[in-house]
Amino acid sequence: MSNKIRLGILGGGGDSLIGVLHRIASSMHDKYQIVGGVFNPVWEENIGFAEKISLPTNRIYKDFDTLVEEELKLPVEERMQIVSILTPNFLHFPMAKKLLENGFNVICEKPMTTTYEEAKILNATLKKSKTIFAITYTYTGYPMVRQMREMILNGELGNIQRVDAQYYQGWINPVIHDKEQRANTWRLDPKKGGISCCIGDIGTHAFDMLEYVSGLKIESILADLNYLYPDNKMDIDGTVLLRCSNDVRGVICTSQIATGEENSFIVKIYGDKAGLKWEQENPNFLYLMEDGQPLRVLKPGHSYNSQLSLDGSKLPPGHPEGIFDSMGNIYKGIAKAINNEPYNHGEFPTIIDGVRGMGFIEKAVESHQKGNVWVEIENVD
Amino acid sequence: MSNKIRLGILGGGGDSLIGVLHRIASSMHDKYQIVGGVFNPVWEENIGFAEKISLPTNRIYKDFDTLVEEELKLPVEERMQIVSILTPNFLHFPMAKKLLENGFNVICEKPMTTTYEEAKILNATLKKSKTIFAITYTYTGYPMVRQMREMILNGELGNIQRVDAQYYQGWINPVIHDKEQRANTWRLDPKKGGISCCIGDIGTHAFDMLEYVSGLKIESILADLNYLYPDNKMDIDGTVLLRCSNDVRGVICTSQIATGEENSFIVKIYGDKAGLKWEQENPNFLYLMEDGQPLRVLKPGHSYNSQLSLDGSKLPPGHPEGIFDSMGNIYKGIAKAINNEPYNHGEFPTIIDGVRGMGFIEKAVESHQKGNVWVEIENVD
Amino acid sequence: MSNKIRLGILGGGGDSLIGVLHRIASSMHDKYQIVGGVFNPVWEENIGFAEKISLPTNRIYKDFDTLVEEELKLPVEERMQIVSILTPNFLHFPMAKKLLENGFNVICEKPMTTTYEEAKILNATLKKSKTIFAITYTYTGYPMVRQMREMILNGELGNIQRVDAQYYQGWINPVIHDKEQRANTWRLDPKKGGISCCIGDIGTHAFDMLEYVSGLKIESILADLNYLYPDNKMDIDGTVLLRCSNDVRGVICTSQIATGEENSFIVKIYGDKAGLKWEQENPNFLYLMEDGQPLRVLKPGHSYNSQLSLDGSKLPPGHPEGIFDSMGNIYKGIAKAINNEPYNHGEFPTIIDGVRGMGFIEKAVESHQKGNVWVEIENVD
Amino acid sequence: MSNKIRLGILGGGGDSLIGVLHRIASSMHDKYQIVGGVFNPVWEENIGFAEKISLPTNRIYKDFDTLVEEELKLPVEERMQIVSILTPNFLHFPMAKKLLENGFNVICEKPMTTTYEEAKILNATLKKSKTIFAITYTYTGYPMVRQMREMILNGELGNIQRVDAQYYQGWINPVIHDKEQRANTWRLDPKKGGISCCIGDIGTHAFDMLEYVSGLKIESILADLNYLYPDNKMDIDGTVLLRCSNDVRGVICTSQIATGEENSFIVKIYGDKAGLKWEQENPNFLYLMEDGQPLRVLKPGHSYNSQLSLDGSKLPPGHPEGIFDSMGNIYKGIAKAINNEPYNHGEFPTIIDGVRGMGFIEKAVESHQKGNVWVEIENVD
Repeated sequence: MSNKIRLGILGGGGDSLIGVLHRIASSMHDKYQIVGGVFNPVWEENIGFAEKISLPTNRIYKDFDTLVEEELKLPVEERMQIVSILTPNFLHFPMAKKLLENGFNVICEKPMTTTYEEAKILNATLKKSKTIFAITYTYTGYPMVRQMREMILNGELGNIQRVDAQYYQGWINPVIHDKEQRANTWRLDPKKGGISCCIGDIGTHAFDMLEYVSGLKIESILADLNYLYPDNKMDIDGTVLLRCSNDVRGVICTSQIATGEENSFIVKIYGDKAGLKWEQENPNFLYLMEDGQPLRVLKPGHSYNSQLSLDGSKLPPGHPEGIFDSMGNIYKGIAKAINNEPYNHGEFPTIIDGVRGMGFIEKAVESHQKGNVWVEIENVD
Repeated sequence: MSNKIRLGILGGGGDSLIGVLHRIASSMHDKYQIVGGVFNPVWEENIGFAEKISLPTNRIYKDFDTLVEEELKLPVEERMQIVSILTPNFLHFPMAKKLLENGFNVICEKPMTTTYEEAKILNATLKKSKTIFAITYTYTGYPMVRQMREMILNGELGNIQRVDAQYYQGWINPVIHDKEQRANTWRLDPKKGGISCCIGDIGTHAFDMLEYVSGLKIESILADLNYLYPDNKMDIDGTVLLRCSNDVRGVICTSQIATGEENSFIVKIYGDKAGLKWEQENPNFLYLMEDGQPLRVLKPGHSYNSQLSLDGSKLPPGHPEGIFDSMGNIYKGIAKAINNEPYNHGEFPTIIDGVRGMGFIEKAVESHQKGNVWVEIENVD
Repeated sequence: MSNKIRLGILGGGGDSLIGVLHRIASSMHDKYQIVGGVFNPVWEENIGFAEKISLPTNRIYKDFDTLVEEELKLPVEERMQIVSILTPNFLHFPMAKKLLENGFNVICEKPMTTTYEEAKILNATLKKSKTIFAITYTYTGYPMVRQMREMILNGELGNIQRVDAQYYQGWINPVIHDKEQRANTWRLDPKKGGISCCIGDIGTHAFDMLEYVSGLKIESILADLNYLYPDNKMDIDGTVLLRCSNDVRGVICTSQIATGEENSFIVKIYGDKAGLKWEQENPNFLYLMEDGQPLRVLKPGHSYNSQLSLDGSKLPPGHPEGIFDSMGNIYKGIAKAINNEPYNHGEFPTIIDGVRGMGFIEKAVESHQKGNVWVEIENVD
Repeated sequence: MSNKIRLGILGGGGDSLIGVLHRIASSMHDKYQIVGGVFNPVWEENIGFAEKISLPTNRIYKDFDTLVEEELKLPVEERMQIVSILTPNFLHFPMAKKLLENGFNVICEKPMTTTYEEAKILNATLKKSKTIFAITYTYTGYPMVRQMREMILNGELGNIQRVDAQYYQGWINPVIHDKEQRANTWRLDPKKGGISCCIGDIGTHAFDMLEYVSGLKIESILADLNYLYPDNKMDIDGTVLLRCSNDVRGVICTSQIATGEENSFIVKIYGDKAGLKWEQENPNFLYLMEDGQPLRVLKPGHSYNSQLSLDGSKLPPGHPEGIFDSMGNIYKGIAKAINNEPYNHGEFPTIIDGVRGMGFIEKAVESHQKGNVWVEIENVD
């Protein structure tokens, strides 16, 4: 009998890229075995996909409720230990909630819910269930992001005095200028995507990343969002001024109309001793800047890195790893938690990250709608 | 008799770096001859410096007023045609004003004046004098900045939809955290440096550059400045939200406490057809981004560049030129204007740029002091 | 019953990095299932490792011969379809030979054998067995390497006129200068590592890569190798002049004493229409150079790439993939061959690549020993 | 009376780029005054050019011999102190020889002569004249090249164990494939360009640079040159294996058919302690690599640089300087020598560099013609 963690999957069938990402990530460290799930609401597609990826089909269920019902009938040592939710956003909340209430551990894609209210409810649910809940802010799994976090926690930058995140994409550009396309893209439809497109989709990554690496809390924000067309309901670009704990200031610049940008997520943290810079499209380079010193470029796998970072690279320096490896690291951390092994809190994002992210989205929209004024981000625990 | 333009210099003696920059720039294209000036208020230093750089000393004057007086006695064909003002900031205004009133052309270092009010007076003076006034926003002389401007003017980016400038330095970091040092640095002394340090010194470059390359006017701003210590009177970091003409949004991020940064001035302009990116520390590379196309990297000296850009590089591609060459290009453009030759309006910044820059500084401080609210930048002509 | 390809593994247990690489690569596209193998000659380690990675232990065999014997007893539809050889180099040849003779398909780590003679025997064996034999020159799986190949095959560079590969590492530097260490490192021991260290280990990658991307054959070489110390038996640095088909010239520069280099493998191909450059440590960037045109930077996942390249990236542009993904692509190609699906010959390296690589090593040493003279690389089919 | 060094110029008129480079370089540090010369053999062009650049015309001579004759009539304190030779290559030798014989200091563009024999004669002449002779290997004036040299001299790399220079251009590509063009380009005409094109033009830069930064002497070489077409008399591509003093090995790769390359001159030196890398197209970055340490990127103007390097940058870090500044540094060093001030031997290249360069060209061609065999580079003093 395998001692791998029994993993169920919700969604992620067909051509889903997020499905590929989670399946590969889960398999990377020999820690998980996919035992079943619901890949698709249409039964033929669901079972067909399971066959296509050569899964045993006995635990492919017709729908989510059946999955919960049937799995609960199984003895606990056979039952799914954790379920990954990769479904459309509006399903995250009800699925996660029911799973938690029934004692399952959960891995949830972002955004965690469609509203901040739901996020807080989920947090309350988790407190009762005492299971494990992880949200996949994938970029936090990169070894050099982890190194950034550890260096800052260890005081290598001194007191932080400026934080700066840029997340620029261009993919909405060809969509937004066509009236029909912008009316029919789900990302721009509040019914499907919530109240925000750009801030919700990528701004939250920036928000989470700044808190992850700096150890600061973002306490209040002032947002200026851009919708470009009056008939467009969702922001597709925005700048957010930040006030963080310890009176640190900063900014998040996001855009999905930065034409020609692919996935340009750049993070810069400056302290009174040194600064650090990281770019997602070149994730294996971390730039350390000090007054009057040569720029230093840190790379994964070197012994000068922290244990948290080293734990996130599999090969010696000079062998580039990428985003699949980053997600694999997050799954690896979750496995440690499931298996009651010691782990570093930087190994995977938790529900608090998810709740704060939802708070950020709503507050950014609120700040904008009130005329670009400061609004507070609630504290959550 | 030389047909070079007769140039006078005010300030820039001793170890002045700005003096070196202007002297080399003026000599680069065989267009100017330095005929005299006042390098230093102390006579021995003044005359000594002239001798050190092997200038004839007959037109080295004991002070500015004497220079004006004596030069006016010379026949017009011997008189200084243009005077470069490289003195401490508070002298820019009175010197420039008197020079203009007496019919001299003027090249003025930035900041043009110490207040917006002075800037407007100078503009009025210039309108009467009908001479030429240039302000040395040096970075606009780089060939790839010029190329950026021309491409945007030619519509190669389509309609602009986001502008973004970052200007990060770290040099104040070692100063700001030492109570004594921050009390004694002239840049942080409102009596010497005006009402702003970071915005005044580098924010204005970002402001001017965005207007220079995009062809847009920045119409209103919302600034969040950082002073770090209550006893520090001058901003040393700040973020400014922008509303430009054509309803374009953007941001200027500036800091002088971005520890370890040297002179990281980055400009990004995104249109609905393409985007452009440029970095001052690698000034010979211009990045053109288009949806679904390979990134293109343009470099100086290639025939694919505009005439304005080509006019700013002296050697074939692959032979890097730098900031002296950039300033040299500005002097070259001014020479064309002096000599009544046709020139491109992108060849040198004018008093309008200077006035707008002063307006930007005052409005940024005002926006911050009022609690980070939108304030308008006046239109100037 | 799973329709995945039944994969056996030889070696790669314990802390083996190559084992991790192959296991993850094999799992990436849902095409393989590891059904058994021999991870270690010591039984406890062998079975212990299988348990650690949660494999069923029924087909973990005590040694290679038993594996062959027992697998042959299984019905063909249960039998291992392909076996990956990840053992120490000297075992590659006997294992591969026996596997081929018994009808198994084989994936073999490089170097394929320890001598050129063995390589040719293996080739002859394969011709009889008519199974599939792949050698894992991992770097050929990168999407931008594949793109390079396709562009050249499509004539986008015109006629090739110079090829250039650099492969620099620094890892032997701390070893080579210590008499004891250099005597005891297996890589520097001809009994364990064959007749060459640097050329054998990384020079072969360069050799194979140049042939892979350019479509040329390297016909003769002139090598200058460096051993640094008289008591060192194995080259640790070398330069190899190349004469290729179509009278193309070029060079391979390799070193393992390039102190501080990690895994700096750079490939440049110049034709009469354009040039291409690629660097392994930044594998998602391919540089296209043309006379008088902006440099173009191609990245994975864009529709401007060839089908072969696109088939090698799983996520949209801007989501970096790495070396595990590269090896995964090779496994994916092999799966197509096993399953009799159509595939591009660029999808995985074959025994011919392996044989040529072994020929290159022996000829490089011969050229050096004869006083840096030209020697021919035999043609193999 | 000016205390500037009285400089004469031979050649460099009209549209000459090298003329611009030398004039600007000579003016950069307020050390030289151009007092006369011969810009062009055609009198109207000669005098016209002098007027165009606003020089006094009284010492513009009709030809070189007149210049020498007339200048010798002037009292020594008015006479030209140094003459820069920027004429076509075949004139370098007779002009330099006569100038030296008549007691003038000389700055000579490369190649110093058209044959090695001439170079040795010039060296003998200089020994008698005891004047100063500088050859303008421009790239040695870059501050980070100088830093490289000083770090290596100071032992920061330990014992050198590999040297590597690449110098790739693509400009001959459009010429070489057109029969008529290749017959009519002066660079490819042995009567005008000597016996080598690529090695002579850019290979010598690589040769000189390796010796300049490493402090080693290149003692023997094995060259493989490429002419591409039988009717082409001059190499346009070549690789040269190197044996240096201290038994160090290395390679020079050069090409002028590296299509799309502009001026890609890259230098890498590896010692047993560390490695250094520099690229001419990004000349303000110097990469220091050490085993197991972060890559360090050094930039000009920082106090961590050597005095020789700091002396070569005029502005604070982050203000890019370029090739004009590099040449300016060489002129500055020569001025020190002329003025009998102390200077570092790294400040300008001397006749020994010129002689060795000519030796390198002839030996490279000899090695190639003899079938790619080792030939020795003579020692010169």
